[in-house]
Amino acid sequence: MIREARLSDISTIHDMIVELAVYEKEPDAVTATPADLERALFGDNPALFAHVAEDPEHGVVGFTLWFLNYSTWLGKHGIYLEDLYVKPDHRGAGYGIALLSNLAQICVERGYGRLDWWVLDWNTPARGFYESLGANALTEWIPYRVTGEALRRLVSSSYHP
Amino acid sequence: MIREARLSDISTIHDMIVELAVYEKEPDAVTATPADLERALFGDNPALFAHVAEDPEHGVVGFTLWFLNYSTWLGKHGIYLEDLYVKPDHRGAGYGIALLSNLAQICVERGYGRLDWWVLDWNTPARGFYESLGANALTEWIPYRVTGEALRRLVSSSYHP
Repeated sequence: MIREARLSDISTIHDMIVELAVYEKEPDAVTATPADLERALFGDNPALFAHVAEDPEHGVVGFTLWFLNYSTWLGKHGIYLEDLYVKPDHRGAGYGIALLSNLAQICVERGYGRLDWWVLDWNTPARGFYESLGANALTEWIPYRVTGEALRRLVSSSYHP
Repeated sequence: MIREARLSDISTIHDMIVELAVYEKEPDAVTATPADLERALFGDNPALFAHVAEDPEHGVVGFTLWFLNYSTWLGKHGIYLEDLYVKPDHRGAGYGIALLSNLAQICVERGYGRLDWWVLDWNTPARGFYESLGANALTEWIPYRVTGEALRRLVSSSYHP
């Protein structure tokens, strides 16, 4: 049901990334091309990984994209789940749990300490689903980001007392 | 002022990880050993990276520990900053900005799209500092985590309609 993504899955995964952005109310956010994905997943020494959920009749119906994080407290790597998606017509059939369970298994097999991800605060169905599986909302931590022009400006930032 | 961490910095970095945990009100959270850090930073094919801030008189006074993330929207890697720390006696001297600016430079040079990290919600001095440098709080995203026994249970979770 769950297997590692192959080169031939790239275009289906890219389509699902766009579907997920639409669901997250950012339909124009995806500037990534299938070629970008291919390079990150199947280039030399990849730092990005993907699994797909395959339905015997309908082919690939969901995916995870993930990379390694690291806990300086545990002294162990873990998995950061960047994207988890199941196509709308195939929800409620266990693919979401199977995709998460697969990543939990990789963590346990490799001695990783944590499986982390972000959820949009208004996505209560997803939050309830994750909490029912034993995940905790780390509400005391706020994600911060520098991107675009601010990232370029930060390069030349320095201290002026 | 900022350079890549060397093997000989491991014990100083480990000490600062413990100091940071104390500041974050989790003094007993660090079970990582210096050997764990050494393996992650200097083993084969590392997925964890570190830079240190060096004071001409006092040696290493701060550090960053980071790894690669990936944006499926941008189709680019980025940097996730796991830890940023400057020793209390050396704060206000520009080391924090220099450490962040160094990571911004790596992002720009390599074509990465984002520099991300988490901040504790009660840490208003840090939040103000980051916002003054152009970082945005992504308050609509909630970090989720599965760890410990729940992670082991998730391995054998499956769908029971």
